[in-house]
Amino acid sequence: MSNRILCFGELLLRLASPGRELLLQSPRLDVHIGGAEANVAIALAHFGHAVGMIGSVADNSLGRAAIAELRRQGVDARAVTVRPGRMGLYFLETGALQRPSEVLYDRADSAFARTPAAAYDWPVLLRGAQLLHLSGVTPALGQACADTAIAAARAARALGLQVVFDGNFRAKLWQAWQSDAASILRELLACADTLFADHRDISVVLGREFAGAEADRAAAAAAFDTFPHVRNIVSTRRLQHSVDRHDLAAQWFTRRGEIQLPAQRLDGIVDRIGGGDAFAAGVLHGLQHGWDDEQSLRFGLAAACLKHSLPGDFLALDEARVRSLMDEARFDVRR
Amino acid sequence: MSNRILCFGELLLRLASPGRELLLQSPRLDVHIGGAEANVAIALAHFGHAVGMIGSVADNSLGRAAIAELRRQGVDARAVTVRPGRMGLYFLETGALQRPSEVLYDRADSAFARTPAAAYDWPVLLRGAQLLHLSGVTPALGQACADTAIAAARAARALGLQVVFDGNFRAKLWQAWQSDAASILRELLACADTLFADHRDISVVLGREFAGAEADRAAAAAAFDTFPHVRNIVSTRRLQHSVDRHDLAAQWFTRRGEIQLPAQRLDGIVDRIGGGDAFAAGVLHGLQHGWDDEQSLRFGLAAACLKHSLPGDFLALDEARVRSLMDEARFDVRR
Amino acid sequence: MSNRILCFGELLLRLASPGRELLLQSPRLDVHIGGAEANVAIALAHFGHAVGMIGSVADNSLGRAAIAELRRQGVDARAVTVRPGRMGLYFLETGALQRPSEVLYDRADSAFARTPAAAYDWPVLLRGAQLLHLSGVTPALGQACADTAIAAARAARALGLQVVFDGNFRAKLWQAWQSDAASILRELLACADTLFADHRDISVVLGREFAGAEADRAAAAAAFDTFPHVRNIVSTRRLQHSVDRHDLAAQWFTRRGEIQLPAQRLDGIVDRIGGGDAFAAGVLHGLQHGWDDEQSLRFGLAAACLKHSLPGDFLALDEARVRSLMDEARFDVRR
Amino acid sequence: MSNRILCFGELLLRLASPGRELLLQSPRLDVHIGGAEANVAIALAHFGHAVGMIGSVADNSLGRAAIAELRRQGVDARAVTVRPGRMGLYFLETGALQRPSEVLYDRADSAFARTPAAAYDWPVLLRGAQLLHLSGVTPALGQACADTAIAAARAARALGLQVVFDGNFRAKLWQAWQSDAASILRELLACADTLFADHRDISVVLGREFAGAEADRAAAAAAFDTFPHVRNIVSTRRLQHSVDRHDLAAQWFTRRGEIQLPAQRLDGIVDRIGGGDAFAAGVLHGLQHGWDDEQSLRFGLAAACLKHSLPGDFLALDEARVRSLMDEARFDVRR
Amino acid sequence: MSNRILCFGELLLRLASPGRELLLQSPRLDVHIGGAEANVAIALAHFGHAVGMIGSVADNSLGRAAIAELRRQGVDARAVTVRPGRMGLYFLETGALQRPSEVLYDRADSAFARTPAAAYDWPVLLRGAQLLHLSGVTPALGQACADTAIAAARAARALGLQVVFDGNFRAKLWQAWQSDAASILRELLACADTLFADHRDISVVLGREFAGAEADRAAAAAAFDTFPHVRNIVSTRRLQHSVDRHDLAAQWFTRRGEIQLPAQRLDGIVDRIGGGDAFAAGVLHGLQHGWDDEQSLRFGLAAACLKHSLPGDFLALDEARVRSLMDEARFDVRR
Amino acid sequence: MSNRILCFGELLLRLASPGRELLLQSPRLDVHIGGAEANVAIALAHFGHAVGMIGSVADNSLGRAAIAELRRQGVDARAVTVRPGRMGLYFLETGALQRPSEVLYDRADSAFARTPAAAYDWPVLLRGAQLLHLSGVTPALGQACADTAIAAARAARALGLQVVFDGNFRAKLWQAWQSDAASILRELLACADTLFADHRDISVVLGREFAGAEADRAAAAAAFDTFPHVRNIVSTRRLQHSVDRHDLAAQWFTRRGEIQLPAQRLDGIVDRIGGGDAFAAGVLHGLQHGWDDEQSLRFGLAAACLKHSLPGDFLALDEARVRSLMDEARFDVRR
Ligand SMILES: [Ca+2]
Ligand SMILES: [Ca+2]
Ligand SMILES: [Ca+2]
Ligand SMILES: [Ca+2]
Ligand SMILES: [Ca+2]
Ligand SMILES: [Ca+2]
Ligand SMILES: [Ca+2]
Ligand SMILES: [Ca+2]
Ligand SMILES: [Ca+2]
Ligand SMILES: [Ca+2]
Ligand SMILES: [Ca+2]
Ligand SMILES: [Ca+2]
Ligand code: NI
Ligand code: NI
Ligand code: NI
Ligand code: NI
Ligand code: NI
Ligand code: NI
Ligand code: NI
Ligand code: NI
Ligand code: NI
Ligand code: NI
Ligand code: NI
Ligand code: NI
Ligand code: NI
Ligand code: NI
Ligand code: NI
Ligand code: NI
Ligand code: NI
Ligand code: NI
Repeated sequence: MSNRILCFGELLLRLASPGRELLLQSPRLDVHIGGAEANVAIALAHFGHAVGMIGSVADNSLGRAAIAELRRQGVDARAVTVRPGRMGLYFLETGALQRPSEVLYDRADSAFARTPAAAYDWPVLLRGAQLLHLSGVTPALGQACADTAIAAARAARALGLQVVFDGNFRAKLWQAWQSDAASILRELLACADTLFADHRDISVVLGREFAGAEADRAAAAAAFDTFPHVRNIVSTRRLQHSVDRHDLAAQWFTRRGEIQLPAQRLDGIVDRIGGGDAFAAGVLHGLQHGWDDEQSLRFGLAAACLKHSLPGDFLALDEARVRSLMDEARFDVRR
Repeated sequence: MSNRILCFGELLLRLASPGRELLLQSPRLDVHIGGAEANVAIALAHFGHAVGMIGSVADNSLGRAAIAELRRQGVDARAVTVRPGRMGLYFLETGALQRPSEVLYDRADSAFARTPAAAYDWPVLLRGAQLLHLSGVTPALGQACADTAIAAARAARALGLQVVFDGNFRAKLWQAWQSDAASILRELLACADTLFADHRDISVVLGREFAGAEADRAAAAAAFDTFPHVRNIVSTRRLQHSVDRHDLAAQWFTRRGEIQLPAQRLDGIVDRIGGGDAFAAGVLHGLQHGWDDEQSLRFGLAAACLKHSLPGDFLALDEARVRSLMDEARFDVRR
Repeated sequence: MSNRILCFGELLLRLASPGRELLLQSPRLDVHIGGAEANVAIALAHFGHAVGMIGSVADNSLGRAAIAELRRQGVDARAVTVRPGRMGLYFLETGALQRPSEVLYDRADSAFARTPAAAYDWPVLLRGAQLLHLSGVTPALGQACADTAIAAARAARALGLQVVFDGNFRAKLWQAWQSDAASILRELLACADTLFADHRDISVVLGREFAGAEADRAAAAAAFDTFPHVRNIVSTRRLQHSVDRHDLAAQWFTRRGEIQLPAQRLDGIVDRIGGGDAFAAGVLHGLQHGWDDEQSLRFGLAAACLKHSLPGDFLALDEARVRSLMDEARFDVRR
Repeated sequence: MSNRILCFGELLLRLASPGRELLLQSPRLDVHIGGAEANVAIALAHFGHAVGMIGSVADNSLGRAAIAELRRQGVDARAVTVRPGRMGLYFLETGALQRPSEVLYDRADSAFARTPAAAYDWPVLLRGAQLLHLSGVTPALGQACADTAIAAARAARALGLQVVFDGNFRAKLWQAWQSDAASILRELLACADTLFADHRDISVVLGREFAGAEADRAAAAAAFDTFPHVRNIVSTRRLQHSVDRHDLAAQWFTRRGEIQLPAQRLDGIVDRIGGGDAFAAGVLHGLQHGWDDEQSLRFGLAAACLKHSLPGDFLALDEARVRSLMDEARFDVRR
Repeated sequence: MSNRILCFGELLLRLASPGRELLLQSPRLDVHIGGAEANVAIALAHFGHAVGMIGSVADNSLGRAAIAELRRQGVDARAVTVRPGRMGLYFLETGALQRPSEVLYDRADSAFARTPAAAYDWPVLLRGAQLLHLSGVTPALGQACADTAIAAARAARALGLQVVFDGNFRAKLWQAWQSDAASILRELLACADTLFADHRDISVVLGREFAGAEADRAAAAAAFDTFPHVRNIVSTRRLQHSVDRHDLAAQWFTRRGEIQLPAQRLDGIVDRIGGGDAFAAGVLHGLQHGWDDEQSLRFGLAAACLKHSLPGDFLALDEARVRSLMDEARFDVRR
Repeated sequence: MSNRILCFGELLLRLASPGRELLLQSPRLDVHIGGAEANVAIALAHFGHAVGMIGSVADNSLGRAAIAELRRQGVDARAVTVRPGRMGLYFLETGALQRPSEVLYDRADSAFARTPAAAYDWPVLLRGAQLLHLSGVTPALGQACADTAIAAARAARALGLQVVFDGNFRAKLWQAWQSDAASILRELLACADTLFADHRDISVVLGREFAGAEADRAAAAAAFDTFPHVRNIVSTRRLQHSVDRHDLAAQWFTRRGEIQLPAQRLDGIVDRIGGGDAFAAGVLHGLQHGWDDEQSLRFGLAAACLKHSLPGDFLALDEARVRSLMDEARFDVRR
C-alpha cells in the first residue's frame, strides 16, 4: 500500500453501442474511459496502491474528462499533460453468441500519439517510484511513441525500478506505419523484469514460431535465453466456446519452473475488454506484496475473471472482493 | 380465489445500479418496491387470491409510492398506515459470473421499524382472514418489531388462522441490536402451521447444528419435535455454479413423510432477489386450493424458477403462466 | 449482387418491453420494425443484393417510418404504398430461463390487411425481377391477402421468376377468420420452387400428420409428390433447453437427396425473433450465387445463428461477417 | 372525502416519442395511461375522494396494466371489465415553439368501443354514488358508446345523482361513423347539472354559431335556455402564444351570474394533455366540498395550471399542493 | 416534386451530451447525423423533391450508418462513396440560459476531407440535375476540398444548373491550414445564382467591412456589383436574448429590391443546430416551385423556426406542416 | 491558483426523479453528488484553485462514490474520512411552471452528522491553508456538528485564515433537535470575515426582523455592528416569476459602502439547486485573486446564473467560461 507504481500509456474513450446492438443501430453511445496501461493503474489503485499515470490527452473537454476519470478511480494523474490535438477514440460493438465484438479504432493522430519523446523528462517522472508498467500498445502507435517507450524503460532500468511489460500485440497498429515491431519490442524486453506474454507475443519479438502443446513453455524458455533481466513470464490461456462463454486459465514461467492454474468457467460474460489488464494488475499486486508466485497468480486470475463481470475497461474492486473469490466460491447475494 | 390472506411486514425501496454495473458506476438507480412478505402478498394476488398487507410506511412520497405499488399489483393496502419517519431502503449491485450481488441495507430507523407494537390492533386487523404470513426479517428489525410479530402470530393462532412463517434469517439485522434471536423465533415457530425453513434457519432457533446430507431431514424432525403445531416444513435447495447459473430443487417435510423434487436448471438468471418469496407464495397457493403436497410443491418451485427470469422483487404472473411451466416445457415464443 | 429479388408482405412495428421486463412493467417500449418477408429482404440487401419490397403501410408517421427503415436497410421501398388505415403492431415481452416470450398481436384491420387484391398490378410489379419471396403469414391475414398472395405467386411463376415460399404457419391468424388454410396454401405451394418448411407446415397443407424421427423426411417426400415445381425443402431444427439456450440445426431436402448439418449451440440468446427469416435469406443468398447446396445451407444456418445475437427482427450483417463464422470459429474481439 | 364519485369512459395507452422528438425519430416510446374521464377520476382520488371508474379494457396485458394504473392512482377499478378485443392507443408527438403536438389516434374497434350498451347494468353500477362524470369523447366512439352514455346519464338523473358532462368535442371521432353528434349530445346535456363547455361545444349541440367577445356568455345563456337541469357552465379560456407558452383563464356561468378569473401565465409547458380534465376535477372537488363557486373555480384553474407542469395525462397531486398555489405564489424549492 | 437537386458536402456524426449536461458529465452520448449540405438535402427530400447527395464517408460502420440515414430520410445517396479513413465527428454540449452551446470539432483528416478533387467526375455526377447546392464549410476543409468545390461549381454553371451557395463561414476551419479564404470563396461566388449570406460572409469574400443598420443592404449591393451571376442574396437575422430565446427574422435582396420579414419569437429552443440549413431548404423549395420571393422567404423562415423545435441537425417535416405555420398560427394539439 | 482553500461540510447524494416527473412516477432516480460546501469547493477547483474538502462519509460504496466524485471534480478529498453509518441522502422532485421543486431530506443520523467534534484535529487539518469555508447547514445537523463547526471557525481565526460563512438557514434541520440556532450561529459569525447572507439569515442570528426595501442594508449594518471581524456581506436577490423563470441580482455590503448589480433574467432554468453555492464560489474566486469587489461580485453573479443552466448541484466550468459571460453577451453556438 505504500510503494509507488507508475503506468505509462494512452487514455482512450470507448464509445459503445448499448446492450448487444450494432453500432448506431440506435442513436446512442455509451462512454467508458480506458487504455491498457490505465486499466492496470486503476485496478492497482483499487487494490490500495499509490499509482501514478504518465501520458498526455487532448486539451479539450474529452481529454479533461479522461483525466478526471483517472482521479475518480484513485490514480494520481498529475503527470498526464494536456496537449493540442484530438483524443484517441475507439468504437465498440459488443458481440454475443457466435458474433465477435468489433473494435473500430479512431485513434490515429491523437494528442498522445503525436507527443514527441522529448516531451517526457523520465528521471523526473520516475523519481521515487518502484515499478514502471508499459505495454506493447504504446510503441505500436508510431515512432515517437516507440522512442518514448524505450526511453522510459531504459531510464527505469537505470534508476533501479522494476520494469513490467505487457505484450498486447496489435498487428493493425504496427501495420499503419513503417514499423519494425520486432526490433523495437526487443529493446523493451531487454529492460523488463516481468513479462505478460504468451507464445504469440514472444514469436513476434524473436521472429520464430512456437506451436503445439508446448508452445508457451518453449517460447518462455526462448525469451529467458534472449532477455537476461526477465524473471517472470505470465499469461492467461483462454478457450472460447462462444463470444460470451470462455474458460480462463493462467500460467507463470520462471527460470526455475512454472505454475499452471486450472481454468475458471466464464459463462455469461458481461464485458471482456480489459480482462488481461486486470490479470496483470492482480499479479503485480501479489508481487508488490511479496506473496508467493502461486498466490499472486491466483489473485491475478481471480481479478481477470471478475473483470469479465463488469461493464467498462477496468476492474474497480478492492482486494477483499477479489480475495473472497480466491478463498471460497460463494455466489449468493451478500446481505 | 375467495379466501383472504394477510401478510405482515415492511415495504422497502430497492435502489439498484443499472445492468451489471457497480453502484454509482453511472449516475442512475433503478427503483423496485419489495419486501419479503409483500413479495408473497403480490404473488398470491396475481394467483387470484384476495390478499391484504399489514404494515406501515413513511409519511412521504416514497411511502405513498410503496403503497400505490401494492395497489397496482392487486394487494389490499388499506392496513398499511403512513407514519412519521423515513422509508427503509436497500441499494443493490447486481453481480455476474463469480461476482456476487451486494445488498447495502439502509433501513435502520425506518417508520416501520419504529412503529410500536401497540399501534397494531390484531383482532381487528385479522378479522375475516384465513391465513397470516410472517417472516424472520420482521422480528430481526428490533424489539418493537419482534414484539409485534409475536403478538400477531399469537392473535392469529388464537383466532384460528393458519400461521405461515418464512425463516429468512438475516444475521446482520439481528446483530445490529441487543437481540436474542433464538428465543424470539421460538415464540413465532410455536404458533406456526407451515414453516419455510431449511436446516440453517432451524439451527438458529434450536441452537444446535445440523450437518451432512441428512441435515435438512434431521432439522425438520427436530422442529416437528419442538413445535407441535408445525405441520409443513418446506424449502428450496440451491446449488450455485456461479452468480447467474443455479440449480434449484425443493423439498417438503411433514410428520408423515417428505417430497423431494429434482433440480431445475437456471442458466442466465435475470434477478435472483425474491426467489424464495415466490416459492412460498406458490406453495401457499396450492395449500389454499387444497392441492396435494406434491402439486403444491411443484407449483412453488415453478414460481420460484420464473421469478429468476423477471427483474424486480416479486413474481407478477398469473396461475396459468406458472402452470404452463409445470405441465410442459415449451420454451418457444408464444404467438 | 446484380439479380433483383422481390419480397411481398406486411411491415409491422414491434413494441417491446425493455430488457427482460414484463409488458408495461416500466413505462417504456422499444420499437423495432420487422415482418417475416421484410426481414428476408433486409438481410438479402445487407448481403449485397438488389432487393425490392412490395406491400402497403398506413398513411401516417408510423407507416412512413416503416418505409424509411426499409430504405435505411438498403431495400428499395418504392413499391410499398401508403394507404388509409392503421399500422400493424405487435407487442413483445421477451422471456428468459423457463418463461417464454409472449407476442401480443394487434395487427387486425391494418392498412396492409385491408388492401384489396386489385390494388396490386403484378406484371408491372414483377418486371425485371428474378425471384419472388412470400410467406405463410400473408395469406393468413384474410381473404384479400390470400387472394393477393396467390395472384402474386401465379404471376411470378408465369413470368418465369423463381418462387420461394416460407411456411410460417400462424394458427391464431388463420383462426381469426373463416379460412381454409390448407386449400389456400396448396395454391401457393403449387407455384413454389423453394420451400422453407418442416413437417408441421407440410402437415397443415396436406392434411396429414408426420411423426417420429423421420417426420421431416417423410413430409418432404410427400410435398415433392404433391407439388411438382418444388425443388428444395429447407428448414432449421431447433432444440430448446430453455428460453435462451437452443441448439439449432438445419436440413435441406431435394428430390435427389438431403443434407443434414449438425446443431450449433446458442447459449445466451439475445433475440430469437426473425431467426427463421435470416436462415431463409442466407439460403437464398447461396442459391442466388449458385453455391452448392451445402454451402448455401451452411451460410443459412450461420445467418440464423447470428440473428440470435442481435436485437431486432432482422439480420443487418454483410456477407463477410456471416462467412467468417462459417469458415472459422474465432470468437475473440476483432481489433 | 366521503362522497362517492363515478367516472365512465375509455382508458387509453399513450405512446409518445421521447422529449421533443418526432414519432419514431429514435426507436423508443414512452407510455402513459389516460383517458379524459379516467384523468378526472385520478385527480379526484388524489384530492381525497372515493372514486370509481366504469368501463372496459382489452383482455390482455395492456388492458390489465391500464386497470392496475387506475388502482395505483387510488381509483376503484372493480367496475372496469376485461373484454375480448384490442386496447385503444394513441401516439403522441410532443411539439415545441411553433410546432404543434400531434395526436395519432389508433383507437378504432377497441374493446371499449365495441362493448354493447347492454353490457352495463346502470342501476347496479350507480348504486350508492352521488355524482356521475361523463365526457363527449365517449359518445363520439360509435353508436354503442353513444347509447351507453345516454343510458348512463338517464339512469344517473333518475337515481338522483349529479350528472357532470365535459364537452370534449372531437370532430374526427364523430366523422368516423354515420353520426348525428348534435342529437346525441342534446340527450346527454338534457341530463346534466354541470357542464364543462365553451361556446364551441355548445355550438355543436345547438347548431348555431356564437362569435365575438360575448360568445361564451351568449352560448351559456342559450344552453341554460335549452337544458333546464344545467346549473353550471364552466370552462377555461386559453390564449396560445406558442406551443409551450399559454395564458390560461377560467370562467363560470350560472343562471344568476358569472365569475371570470384572470389568466395565469404558463411559460415552459411540460405536458398540456389532460389540462382540461384536471380543471374539471378541481372544480368538482370544490363543488363536492360545498365551497363557493369562486373558490372552486380558483382551485380548478390552479389544478389545470399544475397539470401543465407534469408529464402524463393526469394530475397526481393532493389538495394541499394545489391549494398552496391558490393561497400564495412561492416558487422556490421546498425543503 | 420532379426536379432533381444535388447537394455536395460532408456527412458528420454529432455526438452530444444528453439534455443540457456538460460533455461526459454522464457516460452517454446521443448521436445525430448531419452536415450543412446534407441538412439541406434532407429537408428538401421531406418537402417532396428528388434530391441526391454527393460526397464520401469512411469505409466503416459509422460511414455506412451515415449513408443509411440519408436513405432513411429519402435522399438518394448512391453518389456518396466509401473511402479509407475516418469519419468526421463533432461533439456537442448543448447550452441553456446564458451558457452557449459548444461544438468540439473532431473532423480533421476525415475520409471526405482527404478525398482528392480527381475522385469526382462532375459531368457524370451532375447529369440530369437542375440545381447544385454547396456551402462554405466544404472549401474550408483543405485544398482538396476547395479545389473540388470550385470544380463542382464551375461544372454546374457550365452545364446550366442553378448554383446555390451558403456562406457558412467557419473561421476555425480556415485557420487550420494555409488557406486564402477570400480568393477561394470568390471563385465559388462567381458561379452562384443564389447566395445565402449576410454582411459577415460577404465581408470575408470582399475583404471590406460593412457596419451599422445598413450593413446587410450595403454588403448585398457590393456582392451584386462583384458577382454578375448572383440574383438572390438571402439570410436570416437573429437576435439572441439568451441561448434558448431568439428572435428570428429574414431578408431577401435582389437586384430589383428587397423583402424584410418581421421576426418570429423562439422562446424555449430545443435545438438550434441546422436552423440556417432548414432556412435555405425552405427558400429553395419556393424557388423550385416558382413561388414569388415573399412566399419563398416566408416558407424558408417558417422552416427555420420549426427546425429549432426539433432535436437533430435537420428538418424532417413535410411541406404541409411548414405551410400550416405560414398560413395560420394555431398551436394547440392536433387531434 | 496557488492558494489553498478548505471547505468543511457534508457530502450528500441527490436522488432525483427524471425530467419533470414526480418522485417514483417512473421507476428510476438520477443521482448527483453535492452538498453546500462541497459545491463551493468544486466550483473553486474548476476555477483553478487548490481546494481541499474536510468531512466524513459512510464507509460503504455510496460514501466512497462521493469521495471519488470530489476527486473527479479536482478537489483534494484526503481529509474526508470514511466512518460507520449511513450516507446522507435527499430526494428531489424537480418542479416546473407554478409547481415548486420538492426536496425530501433523508439525512438524519448520517455518518457525517454522527461524527464527534473530537474526531477533527483542526490545527492539523488547517495547516498551510488560507481560507476556510463553512455554511449554516452544518451546525444545523446537531450538537456534534455545531460544536465541530465552531471549533473549526475558531481554529481558523486563531491560525490567521480567512473565515467565510454562508448562512444557508434551513429551519427544518434546526427544528429537528433541541437547538438554539441563534447562539450557535453567533459564535460562527464572530469568527467570519466574509458572510454570504441576506436579511433573513441575519435576522435569525440577531433575533430581530428587517423589513421593507432597506431590509438587506439595515441587516448588513446591524451585522457589521455586532460582528467586528465581518468585512463583506454578500448575497443574491432573487425574484421568482415562476419555478423556471427568475430574475437574479446581487449585492455586496462593506463597512465603506455597497454595490448593487442589476438582475439577470433566467428564463428556462435547468437546475436551480446550488445556485447560491456557485455564487459564493465566484465571489471568493475574485477575492482570492484580489479583484476589486465589483469584479468579484459580477463574477459571482455570472457563476450563479450559469449554475442554473447545468444539471446537478455544482458548477463545473472554468474561469474562462464564466468570464465570457461577464465580458460580452454572445449566446450563439461556439464552434
Ligand atoms: Ca491485454
Ligand atoms: Ca426479499
Ligand atoms: Ca449460459
Ligand atoms: Ca427467503
Ligand atoms: Ca418474423
Ligand atoms: Ca419462420
Ligand atoms: Ca378537455
Ligand atoms: Ca450545420
Ligand atoms: Ca420562456
Ligand atoms: Ca448556416
Ligand atoms: Ca446545496
Ligand atoms: Ca445558499
Ligand atoms: Ni496492496
Ligand atoms: Ni468449457
Ligand atoms: Ni457503461
Ligand atoms: Ni387460487
Ligand atoms: Ni448444474
Ligand atoms: Ni426494473
Ligand atoms: Ni451476393
Ligand atoms: Ni444442447
Ligand atoms: Ni432495440
Ligand atoms: Ni376533498
Ligand atoms: Ni401572454
Ligand atoms: Ni413519462
Ligand atoms: Ni415541392
Ligand atoms: Ni425578443
Ligand atoms: Ni436525438
Ligand atoms: Ni483563480
Ligand atoms: Ni422578470
Ligand atoms: Ni444528472
